[in-house]
Amino acid sequence: MQLLEERILKDGKVFAGNVLKVDSFLNHQIDVGLLDAMGAEISRLFAGAGITKVLTIEASGIAVGCFAARRLECPLLFAKKTKTLNIKGEVYTSKVESFTHQCTYDIIASKDFLNENDTVLIVDDFLAKGNALIGLIDIVRQSGAKLAGCAIAIEKGYQGGGDKLRTQGIRVESMAIVESMDEQTGSVTFRR
Amino acid sequence: MQLLEERILKDGKVFAGNVLKVDSFLNHQIDVGLLDAMGAEISRLFAGAGITKVLTIEASGIAVGCFAARRLECPLLFAKKTKTLNIKGEVYTSKVESFTHQCTYDIIASKDFLNENDTVLIVDDFLAKGNALIGLIDIVRQSGAKLAGCAIAIEKGYQGGGDKLRTQGIRVESMAIVESMDEQTGSVTFRR
Repeated sequence: MQLLEERILKDGKVFAGNVLKVDSFLNHQIDVGLLDAMGAEISRLFAGAGITKVLTIEASGIAVGCFAARRLECPLLFAKKTKTLNIKGEVYTSKVESFTHQCTYDIIASKDFLNENDTVLIVDDFLAKGNALIGLIDIVRQSGAKLAGCAIAIEKGYQGGGDKLRTQGIRVESMAIVESMDEQTGSVTFRR
Repeated sequence: MQLLEERILKDGKVFAGNVLKVDSFLNHQIDVGLLDAMGAEISRLFAGAGITKVLTIEASGIAVGCFAARRLECPLLFAKKTKTLNIKGEVYTSKVESFTHQCTYDIIASKDFLNENDTVLIVDDFLAKGNALIGLIDIVRQSGAKLAGCAIAIEKGYQGGGDKLRTQGIRVESMAIVESMDEQTGSVTFRR
């Protein structure tokens, strides 16, 4: 998606340790116009897939998920990272290893909102090694729902998570795929 | 806002300990159509206030914030609850006591995205004692920005946080104000 690639080149910052900082428009401050355009593109790509629910994970997946779900005209469900007092009843649960936070955490989603009658699109802001997606896919499988695929804002192609899922036959659509970054020059190259 | 009050009466559940569970449409599964309608109403209420930024707090404030910011045609900034590796540079920080999680946590927002030229609308999904809002207002004051007011999806009026802020001259607009709840009958009464 040209609009997103241009924005990454303009405002993204490359730091040591494979960090692409896009917190001026994607995951701290959010350019809601850009995200709405991403939602429209995701909706176009998955039109006709019969999606009944968008599934994402807190916190920074929620914004992309909101605009995708709005365009697809279905509810958004966001998996939570810790069990809070307000979650009652039965939940699906899975474990996710976090690259950003260097820890493993549990994700949960209520069984009330996902079942075998659903067709699910998983949405997230970033895809690197794919750990968050693997946890979300696990939850979809536990629910018996059909997985239509995954839609991602920015995929770090060189970390291999997206291609691993594609090899397994899972449809993964990323609005921008970063093929390489150089922390010395700050340059970013996209997959063609 | 009639649409939201009707939805609370239809799908909200009252539990012991002052818990109003609205996770089927507001803070776990999200009815994006309803939230977009709330965004439109918030935009109508604050039209002409010259808002340059919507400020909310992760995680469940993000969805309401997205649709409010989209309608107000300005960026959304969400305060984070823990310092992550991806936040570099200087931050505003404040402390919030959580009713839901029964703990105190730090909230942070980058100084890159909020300054004295901004006019800020604070948005959140819930307002009870007002602790999260007080933390967000503190961040706005640290930044030197102008505070236009606060827009909330559901205020628990009987917990007093909203009225306390109003007494201080802060404009607080809630899409629904719950005046009382009865966990025995499950009934919910709204402020008129």
